[in-house]
Amino acid sequence: MPQPLPPEPLDFGSAEFQSAQAELFDFIRIPSVSADSKYAADVAHAAEFLKSKLESLGFETRVDPTGGHPVVFAQKIVSADKPTVLIYGHYDVQPPDPLELWTSPAFEPTVRGGRIYARGATDDKGQVYAHVRGVEHLLAQGELPVNVKFLIEGEEEMGSPNLEGYIYAHTADLACDIIAISDGSRFAKDIPSITYGVRGLSYIEVEVTGADRDLHSGVYGGSAPNPINALCQMIAQLHDAEGRITVPGFYDGVLELTSEERAAWASLPFSEREFADSIGATELIGETGYTALEHTWGRPTLDCNGIWGGYQGEGSKTVIPSKASAKISCRLVPGQDPRHITRLLLEYIPTLAPKGVKVHAFEHHGGMPMVMDTSSPYFAAAARAVQRAFGRPPVFIRTGGSIPIALALKTALSSEIIFLDLGLNEDNLHSPNESFALEDYQRGILVSSYLLEEIGSRV
Amino acid sequence: MPQPLPPEPLDFGSAEFQSAQAELFDFIRIPSVSADSKYAADVAHAAEFLKSKLESLGFETRVDPTGGHPVVFAQKIVSADKPTVLIYGHYDVQPPDPLELWTSPAFEPTVRGGRIYARGATDDKGQVYAHVRGVEHLLAQGELPVNVKFLIEGEEEMGSPNLEGYIYAHTADLACDIIAISDGSRFAKDIPSITYGVRGLSYIEVEVTGADRDLHSGVYGGSAPNPINALCQMIAQLHDAEGRITVPGFYDGVLELTSEERAAWASLPFSEREFADSIGATELIGETGYTALEHTWGRPTLDCNGIWGGYQGEGSKTVIPSKASAKISCRLVPGQDPRHITRLLLEYIPTLAPKGVKVHAFEHHGGMPMVMDTSSPYFAAAARAVQRAFGRPPVFIRTGGSIPIALALKTALSSEIIFLDLGLNEDNLHSPNESFALEDYQRGILVSSYLLEEIGSRV
Repeated sequence: MPQPLPPEPLDFGSAEFQSAQAELFDFIRIPSVSADSKYAADVAHAAEFLKSKLESLGFETRVDPTGGHPVVFAQKIVSADKPTVLIYGHYDVQPPDPLELWTSPAFEPTVRGGRIYARGATDDKGQVYAHVRGVEHLLAQGELPVNVKFLIEGEEEMGSPNLEGYIYAHTADLACDIIAISDGSRFAKDIPSITYGVRGLSYIEVEVTGADRDLHSGVYGGSAPNPINALCQMIAQLHDAEGRITVPGFYDGVLELTSEERAAWASLPFSEREFADSIGATELIGETGYTALEHTWGRPTLDCNGIWGGYQGEGSKTVIPSKASAKISCRLVPGQDPRHITRLLLEYIPTLAPKGVKVHAFEHHGGMPMVMDTSSPYFAAAARAVQRAFGRPPVFIRTGGSIPIALALKTALSSEIIFLDLGLNEDNLHSPNESFALEDYQRGILVSSYLLEEIGSRV
Repeated sequence: MPQPLPPEPLDFGSAEFQSAQAELFDFIRIPSVSADSKYAADVAHAAEFLKSKLESLGFETRVDPTGGHPVVFAQKIVSADKPTVLIYGHYDVQPPDPLELWTSPAFEPTVRGGRIYARGATDDKGQVYAHVRGVEHLLAQGELPVNVKFLIEGEEEMGSPNLEGYIYAHTADLACDIIAISDGSRFAKDIPSITYGVRGLSYIEVEVTGADRDLHSGVYGGSAPNPINALCQMIAQLHDAEGRITVPGFYDGVLELTSEERAAWASLPFSEREFADSIGATELIGETGYTALEHTWGRPTLDCNGIWGGYQGEGSKTVIPSKASAKISCRLVPGQDPRHITRLLLEYIPTLAPKGVKVHAFEHHGGMPMVMDTSSPYFAAAARAVQRAFGRPPVFIRTGGSIPIALALKTALSSEIIFLDLGLNEDNLHSPNESFALEDYQRGILVSSYLLEEIGSRV
């Protein structure tokens, strides 16, 4: 059941919230599955839905074509003297499969136990529409306190293949002072959070070749090079006994966590045992001397993401394969440049090859780590907005993942990003029975309106 | 072109060799592909073909049904006082695909450059029919000098799924003093050989589990256990820097190569550089202190035959998989019991698991190593037979592979086995354009008849 909210004009029974809810439901009912071409008309419909709504709020709005699904761009410029806030989100959704696991139809929003159940409820229609209604909430009181722009794409669930090009082609339109993104989960149900850092990525593939064809392990075994054995030996050498990565130069320049950050993270209500249990693991691993939150938010990693070679079917086959391969990626932290790390990996890994094998190592892709300047007045404004909506200040956290489009936005627009995640892990994003708590939608609307207010009045 | 033969009555132009060739061609023309059910009638036809032929030679002959393709059993008992020789071979063949790579049709034997090109020419129709005609060659001179039995199966190319059961059900029929098998390649074109040892096998699978589901490598990477990293660390520890296997107790009881064997093998014309080149490898590997022939014929091994886990497709996926697996097998040498070695592997490998992962290791199958007593009079007789047919004595070699059916024969019948391989590696067995040199067929007939003569007269 909804918790009591701080005294605010947007209570559950208000006509405004009823309207916000009805409109979100209409938005959700459009099955804008970007990855499946049979929904292409629905995806276009969702973009037009947003355009109509934002135009009704007085925004200058466009639906811009791309090589794939269109981008909705909207802006309301109230004064050249005011800061400009760019709100990024997406109107496309994951496919709803497997349909049979849904309790109520995926595209018919249904409220049960204070939650809206539907595909897109939290990811990202509910969160993006909280910003739309946050703006409307302010407009009901007068003019906006800041300039507001919306960039709402339709291909996020496909990996945003066209958005980076769009951003670089529209830097003037998108120019802003701060970017707000709500497309994820806050730290915990009772703990609102602002994310100020993401890790980067360096992703490579390694192919090891022994003989030029598969060999009979009886006839040749013992003197023929075995690329699986060799690859395993190479991978095993990439960590030392302390869980540190052995690639020379890998840690050069790594921005160490500050004692303030470590203290702040240590004070968060977080149980490593519960975290291990939540993923069904017997225990956690990681570099000696760091906590699990530090391992995942603030330290670089090296993980094999895939490995293959030889016979993988039922039973047995006595083969020494010609080739074995692995996909290996490193999560990076501020101070590490993915291009440099990739070069270090590509240079070092072949030197680990035992005799008899050849190594071909090549790059897949990378992404820069990012950490925001939380001392900026925008973060203070965001913290006050969250405090007002949730009744308690946010914790400042990082995330272990990489958000390539956030990096493109930050780089192309030279702007910091505030990740104001409004959802919860229990929202089942990308899964059947995705949901979004009504109170999170309500608080989201308030967070958005307060953020704009706080930035307008005190930045 | 054929090399000059030692003076013998079976020259190329003789009516006898013309007949032997014509009959082999008729045998080859029957497409007895055991693995493909559409050839089932042909497989049965090939069995009947042999039955008719052996009956025409005065053999008491049966085509015995099995759960799959039938076994041809034939015997000619000349005297209870004479030794009995059991000749094993197979009348089934590999599928001929890919057909388009054959220069002449797979089942139409065609002579080019002194070679018979056809599926089954060397494996095993040519070699088994050399024994049939070897018996006929002797019968033309009078009664057989020994008792002779034939065991010719129709499922060798499927892994002989029914033969072991057949052997144990027919030990009285199959009782013999020595077994002769011709189903492979001799050491080199100008070097006839007798194989007196095969390696055994212990084959297991190891599954490593971290979390109970695939995880996002950004969100969890650094503290979530990675089963691929873990499996690689475990596999890497299975060999030491000298290429020795680290499983405790693994080498206990291993029968070391004798100085005589090592000297004999060292004297063989064999180039490790050419061996490496023949498999397209930059160099050979193996346990320090042994030659390549020793590595493959006389020392135990541990090879990964397959490995898999995580993402194996195009491009990249940032996953930490729940599971990773490997198939691992050891070739064993005399003194090692596969059941014991399998137990050692299954006990030791899980102890190598780093923290955070669970290990499930289980057995696939095993096979005993075998080494024959080359000091027995049967080996001396075989050596004289080869000397008479090839004009030079055979070298005594081992093979690195395992021959499960040979083990069953040896065990069930308490008999040694002489592997008298008549083919050559260049015969392309199992590949398009399989062939068998006419002179090897001719020599094979002589080897077979001399073997029976030598055993009859001097054992």
